[in-house]
Amino acid sequence: MKNEDRESIKNINDEKYLEQDKKYMKLVFKLALKGVGKVNPNPLVGAIVVKNDHIVGEGYHESYGEAHAEVNALNMAGKNSENSTIYVNLEPCSHFGKTPPCVDKIIAMGVKRCVVSVLDPNPLVSGKGIEKLKNAGIEVRVGILENEGQELNRVFFHYITTGLPYVFLKCAITLDGKIATRTFDSKWITNESARKKVMTLRNRYSGIMIGINTLLQDDPSLNSREENARDPYRIIVDPELKILLDSKILKFNDKKNIIVTSLSNENSPKYMELLKLGVQFILLKNKNFLIKDILEELGKLKIDSLILEGGSNLISRVVEEGHINGGEIFIAPKILGDEKALPFMSGFKIDKMENCFQIKSPKFNIYDDNISIEFYNKIDLNI
Amino acid sequence: MKNEDRESIKNINDEKYLEQDKKYMKLVFKLALKGVGKVNPNPLVGAIVVKNDHIVGEGYHESYGEAHAEVNALNMAGKNSENSTIYVNLEPCSHFGKTPPCVDKIIAMGVKRCVVSVLDPNPLVSGKGIEKLKNAGIEVRVGILENEGQELNRVFFHYITTGLPYVFLKCAITLDGKIATRTFDSKWITNESARKKVMTLRNRYSGIMIGINTLLQDDPSLNSREENARDPYRIIVDPELKILLDSKILKFNDKKNIIVTSLSNENSPKYMELLKLGVQFILLKNKNFLIKDILEELGKLKIDSLILEGGSNLISRVVEEGHINGGEIFIAPKILGDEKALPFMSGFKIDKMENCFQIKSPKFNIYDDNISIEFYNKIDLNI
Repeated sequence: MKNEDRESIKNINDEKYLEQDKKYMKLVFKLALKGVGKVNPNPLVGAIVVKNDHIVGEGYHESYGEAHAEVNALNMAGKNSENSTIYVNLEPCSHFGKTPPCVDKIIAMGVKRCVVSVLDPNPLVSGKGIEKLKNAGIEVRVGILENEGQELNRVFFHYITTGLPYVFLKCAITLDGKIATRTFDSKWITNESARKKVMTLRNRYSGIMIGINTLLQDDPSLNSREENARDPYRIIVDPELKILLDSKILKFNDKKNIIVTSLSNENSPKYMELLKLGVQFILLKNKNFLIKDILEELGKLKIDSLILEGGSNLISRVVEEGHINGGEIFIAPKILGDEKALPFMSGFKIDKMENCFQIKSPKFNIYDDNISIEFYNKIDLNI
Repeated sequence: MKNEDRESIKNINDEKYLEQDKKYMKLVFKLALKGVGKVNPNPLVGAIVVKNDHIVGEGYHESYGEAHAEVNALNMAGKNSENSTIYVNLEPCSHFGKTPPCVDKIIAMGVKRCVVSVLDPNPLVSGKGIEKLKNAGIEVRVGILENEGQELNRVFFHYITTGLPYVFLKCAITLDGKIATRTFDSKWITNESARKKVMTLRNRYSGIMIGINTLLQDDPSLNSREENARDPYRIIVDPELKILLDSKILKFNDKKNIIVTSLSNENSPKYMELLKLGVQFILLKNKNFLIKDILEELGKLKIDSLILEGGSNLISRVVEEGHINGGEIFIAPKILGDEKALPFMSGFKIDKMENCFQIKSPKFNIYDDNISIEFYNKIDLNI
């Protein structure tokens, strides 16, 4: 879709419904969020059908492969859909996927007006749903609370446009930036309230990625521990296949363990044992593999997002290659003051302060006596 | 004064004036704060004279050696002082210092009631002012907003009871706890808004203490740069007298430069040059000097408080000896990820996370994209 066409779509409406449209769109966002942790790699979508300023139907995309939000809302509205306004945060689809096109349903139900926050990010179909609705005589408004609409689906937009999982850095550090003592002890840096937030994050993103050293040192379960939450994929970057067969994560029988290792380990006895335990493998051809290689393979497995939880080496590699998309760094008011304690990032040589890595537009969250820096940007080197 | 007597003083009043007393005491605190940076090593004191629920006089201790708050407030009230209530955050003095005793003035002016937040912390005189007022038939209430009253004068209380300056740690660190790059570059870590706060701190505390390495690397001016602010004492810990004669701080002709150095440097050519430039010296007898030795000498010079601004070695020594009384650590969303960058604390060997240094009851302040951890406690090792 051309930019001029996009503009003409946006300008088609006057301002008379602006406040009302914003009000309902906010409700749509809330509905969409009910799908967190259940719809990946699909987008979070909510829909509301409004008639005479009354909500007559509402719905959201409840789980991957199931009905779209618009369909749920229109089914609830039934005959009230006629001459109604439908609000939906993402452009209704115009193509057959796992379900029939939503625009056909919207047209068939006699909807009069359609208000959308964000266009479909896929350049091949973006704007086509809107076009079809307009051709059917439906009044369309696009761009209501567009920034919020984009933020809501930042994971989906990233995944659909790049094919790579959205990488969310999660770190728990001391005030002097350490993730463990010199003896690798890290229990606990942050308080309960901060650790509870981490469990919420583990439900929001599809996978957790850690390096083999972190696995060997902490033997974590990497599960969610939240009620009604699904467990994330556990992705272990382990080029030399050092994983121990009695690691806690291998006790999960959910086919969600993925080990990234060198091709040379294929068919080794340990590899065969791990296969029997349901482990999936991503095999790296080169010794000097790129993080991008791993992310591409994970994307192919429909893993749209992951939390990067450590350790130092892996975090530094992902930052260096520019693959951090956002993150939350939790800081405890603790100090080790020990040069041999483990830093959360290492291996760089930076002479000038102005050339350091910079986190842009940080947001701060307070968790009792801990604090976090939350961001939705790359960690960029200032050069 | 015995504890039982103290209790009997506190319980003498019923609750009928409680809300009113709190209201006026808050105003007293505000008045007292007008003396920040001007009264050290005296306490911050404000006073209000109230008659028939109207303020008829107010005053504060305006500068060291000048009239006390009570006197200023009573002078303003004049004849209205008769049968009035006087509010003052600190127990009125009963002894001759640089000015005559305030209790005599309160009695002479015919005040009927006296409301005090905190007793004099000096055990030799604590409670004596109150006693004298009561003996003169004045109704006395002590302990209104006592915690706030104590916080207001935490510097004075510390100095008067220990003879040592209150040590306030100020640090500007990256997210990974560094105060400079491997080439000692530190300009700038924090943003303008955070650096402005530092100027406010430099007006609040009487001195700034840094180590010689920080002076040699940064050549700072260590002045306040706030309008109407006085400059703090500049205290350089320089055992080997490495200071350069063209250092910026030596250009100030205000007798506020203090160099802490080894006794063996006394009368050396550089020492003589520095004397000519108005530098005061604190001479350390032992090579293995204690921070306490320095603080004791500074206390004798009537320096009631200082900001400890670095570097790494000096901060670590002061923390280790348990002389930090509070602080504000500013954190920028920057990362060096460089093992050779300068940490803000170093030299400790800590195996277990639970045995790390801990900052208790931190308060968080946000300065645009920077954040700070403010605290008024020792930095304790958890052992």
